[in-house]
Amino acid sequence: MNSFDFGYKKGFASDNWSGVSPEVMKVLAEVNRGHHPAYGENDPMLGLAKQRFREVFGEDCEVFFVYNGTGANVLSVQQLLRSWEAVVTPHSAHLNEDEGGAPEKFTGGKLLTVHCEDGKIRPEQIRPFLSSFGFQHHVQARMISISQATEMGTLYQLAEIKALADFAHANNMFLHMDGARIANAAVALGCTFGEMTTGCGVDVLSFGGTKNGLMFGEAVVFLDEKLAEGFEYSRKQGMQLASKMRFIIAQFLAYFENDLWKRNAENSNRMARMLGRLLPETEGISLSRPVEANGVFAIMPEALIPKLQQEYFFHIWNESKNEVRLMCSFDTTEEDVRGLVDAAKRLVG
Amino acid sequence: MNSFDFGYKKGFASDNWSGVSPEVMKVLAEVNRGHHPAYGENDPMLGLAKQRFREVFGEDCEVFFVYNGTGANVLSVQQLLRSWEAVVTPHSAHLNEDEGGAPEKFTGGKLLTVHCEDGKIRPEQIRPFLSSFGFQHHVQARMISISQATEMGTLYQLAEIKALADFAHANNMFLHMDGARIANAAVALGCTFGEMTTGCGVDVLSFGGTKNGLMFGEAVVFLDEKLAEGFEYSRKQGMQLASKMRFIIAQFLAYFENDLWKRNAENSNRMARMLGRLLPETEGISLSRPVEANGVFAIMPEALIPKLQQEYFFHIWNESKNEVRLMCSFDTTEEDVRGLVDAAKRLVG
Amino acid sequence: MNSFDFGYKKGFASDNWSGVSPEVMKVLAEVNRGHHPAYGENDPMLGLAKQRFREVFGEDCEVFFVYNGTGANVLSVQQLLRSWEAVVTPHSAHLNEDEGGAPEKFTGGKLLTVHCEDGKIRPEQIRPFLSSFGFQHHVQARMISISQATEMGTLYQLAEIKALADFAHANNMFLHMDGARIANAAVALGCTFGEMTTGCGVDVLSFGGTKNGLMFGEAVVFLDEKLAEGFEYSRKQGMQLASKMRFIIAQFLAYFENDLWKRNAENSNRMARMLGRLLPETEGISLSRPVEANGVFAIMPEALIPKLQQEYFFHIWNESKNEVRLMCSFDTTEEDVRGLVDAAKRLVG
Amino acid sequence: MNSFDFGYKKGFASDNWSGVSPEVMKVLAEVNRGHHPAYGENDPMLGLAKQRFREVFGEDCEVFFVYNGTGANVLSVQQLLRSWEAVVTPHSAHLNEDEGGAPEKFTGGKLLTVHCEDGKIRPEQIRPFLSSFGFQHHVQARMISISQATEMGTLYQLAEIKALADFAHANNMFLHMDGARIANAAVALGCTFGEMTTGCGVDVLSFGGTKNGLMFGEAVVFLDEKLAEGFEYSRKQGMQLASKMRFIIAQFLAYFENDLWKRNAENSNRMARMLGRLLPETEGISLSRPVEANGVFAIMPEALIPKLQQEYFFHIWNESKNEVRLMCSFDTTEEDVRGLVDAAKRLVG
Repeated sequence: MNSFDFGYKKGFASDNWSGVSPEVMKVLAEVNRGHHPAYGENDPMLGLAKQRFREVFGEDCEVFFVYNGTGANVLSVQQLLRSWEAVVTPHSAHLNEDEGGAPEKFTGGKLLTVHCEDGKIRPEQIRPFLSSFGFQHHVQARMISISQATEMGTLYQLAEIKALADFAHANNMFLHMDGARIANAAVALGCTFGEMTTGCGVDVLSFGGTKNGLMFGEAVVFLDEKLAEGFEYSRKQGMQLASKMRFIIAQFLAYFENDLWKRNAENSNRMARMLGRLLPETEGISLSRPVEANGVFAIMPEALIPKLQQEYFFHIWNESKNEVRLMCSFDTTEEDVRGLVDAAKRLVG
Repeated sequence: MNSFDFGYKKGFASDNWSGVSPEVMKVLAEVNRGHHPAYGENDPMLGLAKQRFREVFGEDCEVFFVYNGTGANVLSVQQLLRSWEAVVTPHSAHLNEDEGGAPEKFTGGKLLTVHCEDGKIRPEQIRPFLSSFGFQHHVQARMISISQATEMGTLYQLAEIKALADFAHANNMFLHMDGARIANAAVALGCTFGEMTTGCGVDVLSFGGTKNGLMFGEAVVFLDEKLAEGFEYSRKQGMQLASKMRFIIAQFLAYFENDLWKRNAENSNRMARMLGRLLPETEGISLSRPVEANGVFAIMPEALIPKLQQEYFFHIWNESKNEVRLMCSFDTTEEDVRGLVDAAKRLVG
Repeated sequence: MNSFDFGYKKGFASDNWSGVSPEVMKVLAEVNRGHHPAYGENDPMLGLAKQRFREVFGEDCEVFFVYNGTGANVLSVQQLLRSWEAVVTPHSAHLNEDEGGAPEKFTGGKLLTVHCEDGKIRPEQIRPFLSSFGFQHHVQARMISISQATEMGTLYQLAEIKALADFAHANNMFLHMDGARIANAAVALGCTFGEMTTGCGVDVLSFGGTKNGLMFGEAVVFLDEKLAEGFEYSRKQGMQLASKMRFIIAQFLAYFENDLWKRNAENSNRMARMLGRLLPETEGISLSRPVEANGVFAIMPEALIPKLQQEYFFHIWNESKNEVRLMCSFDTTEEDVRGLVDAAKRLVG
Repeated sequence: MNSFDFGYKKGFASDNWSGVSPEVMKVLAEVNRGHHPAYGENDPMLGLAKQRFREVFGEDCEVFFVYNGTGANVLSVQQLLRSWEAVVTPHSAHLNEDEGGAPEKFTGGKLLTVHCEDGKIRPEQIRPFLSSFGFQHHVQARMISISQATEMGTLYQLAEIKALADFAHANNMFLHMDGARIANAAVALGCTFGEMTTGCGVDVLSFGGTKNGLMFGEAVVFLDEKLAEGFEYSRKQGMQLASKMRFIIAQFLAYFENDLWKRNAENSNRMARMLGRLLPETEGISLSRPVEANGVFAIMPEALIPKLQQEYFFHIWNESKNEVRLMCSFDTTEEDVRGLVDAAKRLVG
């Protein structure tokens, strides 16, 4: 069937422009045998996956599979907050800027946002919202949501996560982590998923893999299973219950098998570091943010941007500053990085 | 990796207990090359898929891909109705009984249900709701939603669909079709998808394939593209926008290629007819509904049911009547059918 | 100002077509002095009202004032249920038929309705919904809602309420009472509000007065204050927080003063009994339901109805049966009743 | 009935701490005669009120009465926007800060806020949101909402309103005005309501009176009746439909009669100007914002504030700056103003 031979050129637009890890495709084919209970109900494969997650996140966790990161984020909020309770989050959070209003629509709640230059929120930025506690005219802050890695390519150190969790719990709030790129963070910080979440006091995690080699599917992980009561109904009502659940479960099994997540994330982080090192060699290009995970942010000559995008597509991050974002993926190669760098050098002249 | 060798035995529980057609798996692997724009944005593959849908449903249609049938159904309602407008539907509709309250939660609207013994609603059952038009205390009926095939395994004839569409349009209402099993219906009626929808006046269709050999993904098809304005925002807000969209698109391309949908549905329908013919040979077993698509409903001796379920799993439909539901799938074989029938004969004694 | 001299003729359309008890108007004028804290916050008058409610409903109750019955009903559901939990209620319930879809819109939840010929639901009609417990595709029944008196003019006996409460609690459900006409019920049954609610195990009550001589305002009474946690935020988010709260509080103080509620309800019930006795004297008129509170339902000759409506307006209840509804109010007089009866006799010929 | 003789001392907390204009109380008593159709349906009084509004706002307007400002604001948004469309508004807007999340809950939409030092938004602050048009991951700005007067006591000049309306319409957006204090604004600017709204291109107005001498009730005024289609259903679903509607209608009739609204607002504005003039005479007190309507914002010595609040209650606006807000009402007298000023002088020492 030649019609499906698309084979677009690789670029640096986003880590979800890449395809699926071969190891994942292999497992998808393997589990395509016989019948499985729909929705994962009483499917031993689901039990196996839950066991894997408990090995990773601790015995007290409970995990549910959903379709995507928007679903995982929104349903995390829906589960733990009432509609008059609010989430405090950086203005740049995906939850606030890039979910198309899904949190407000589905949970009926409000997001309280704080401008964070580096994409990271600090306890002192949350404190002002506490003065609304008990005032019936204001929404009541009940959750802090952070992205790890952030949308700015930055990372929270473990101590910073722990400080946010402690602040949250001291004030009757929950800490949610949007882990769309948690693998990149874990690899960069040299820690385990458990250390970064359960170990720091995170309450609920959107555990993503699509940006790191999976096809679709995301896991909502409650680090304390007592918080998970009734979530299965909310998932269904949230249109996030997959019927052929085995094909999500299988991907996560493959993801943990032989540390596939780690190998993939190590590659994308390494490529980002390489790109961050080589790109500023070109005159007029400088990094605008530190390279901490798999994203590279750079200032480029305005005239260069459209020309370079023709060869390797990427997104403009901040038009007024000619700042661009270059994301590396599990399938980015040294050749891709050198190709981009060489093109920049060639085109800038 | 032996751990993923599950290979559960086939049964008759539901057509979403089966796996994925080999043809679909093949295309999923084929499109797993290089980078594709995320979300299908400007992906030529999306353009190709849209063209296929226009060939099937007519030049005026517009199609959007979502994750599942719940998403397709709920977002169809959200798109065309305001929250004080209501959907009239059979009480047995998946939309009413099996979406976990998703329509009410996401659209804020009400379902007005009618008890329909055979799962099919008629215009005269909708007429009483018209008396609420203009009365500000009542929700205003604005959409009729039908399932084709129905949850009872029955079919609307084309003339019946047309009558419902005419009734709807004469009363300022829309006609929605939940086509989770539309392929089984088209095959059974010997008509095209276009004849059954566009040709009859359907306004919006949830076009499913997961119950007929796809892995995941559903298409919302507006038969008149003017009804589709803004739907992309609603899909995002509805948590139904897939990032690696190519893997949904590819499945639908494969589904139409060489009439895969037809071959799959023909098999499941044929197996259902065979089952419907052979099953009543066993003493104490009789069909409770006509076999029109791929579902077989039968009354069985109460004691037989749990024993037979041990060998080939299936669901009880109506406990008080010992009525069971047996669904055939694209991968059901004559051997499976005979195996069930033989087991019933053996176990009934 | 002659322009405001409307003075429409009294009729039997509904008990909310009447005006306000003089005693209530007097208190509204009395409290119109000086400044009061807005929203009732720290207003000693609110403390006084709460004390009155505790005297009536018991020391454990907590009360909140809202604008109307729709608000009280919807916010009661919102407070106690999550959106995937459902309310079981008679199909004829105001909550289902006459709130314009407000419960679905605001709570995101589903109503599970049962056809109840006399407007009263029984435990055995609720039992079938229990089979959905634990099934993630179905909403989970969590509340029973009853109207006392019902929309059919009938009453639950105390033992019936208690049986519903016991059934609810045995199945992890709440019992809500829509008390838009609770005063009529209490007078008819010869019991106190406390006996009918707290004493029977009701969990939350919409305590109405507008249909019995108040101008506006309704009370949400949680019979156990532990259920009320956070309700003030929900009320605000539900657009039901009045700024000049003193004018709602004052009405309820007046309502309890010298048993105004009782005198008003006794009159309307008495007028209904009188009407129920005299109306069937006319040839062709017969009662279609027992007269238990302040509503009279009757079958009339089809030709008589529009003529009689010209003289005393009332609503047709069931057109197909020529059944009409005649509501008596706190200001209905014997002269009004005789006037209607005489007109019927005169016009029927 | 002595128990209702509260008679709290007047203060400067808010213009909704005051009671009801005697003229309004008089009309409430006058319309308390006979029966009126509930919900205003076919009540000639409603026709009369609509005529008054058309005289004020132009022949093309359509008006609906609701309970309060939260209801008017939220239902205005609900009527004109789909849930994935957003409102752009100053961060300080009542809609954003003081509705307890009602807009998000009921409309499912997002508010896009801009920090506006003086409470007034300008077109150039809205322009950045336009870049999201057509991007499916972002909500789509569809309405600008302004408060007139603002929560900061400032006013939009007519030319500023017109500029916002022109900007809105040029970009396919609507302009909403929160007119909780519109009477104060009209008096201060010396213009009519019509000039300030219809004349400037406002699309929908929340027309408040409770802060200017009414008891309860607010009007939603669509300046073009074509925008109002179906609003009555939304009002009911929004729990904002009053049964004894005559008592809201009557208040607005009284409000327009002999320009009551004007006399009341003139008094409160005049008192605010007087207060703004006299207050800075005290050492350590200075105005922090211009006095443009009926609010006075001042910086006071920290130690003075609690002492002065004991004598005349008022709210702290910004604790970090010792900024307080003093609101004048229709019933504020020169004696009240002098009393406060004298107390400040006495207590500051």
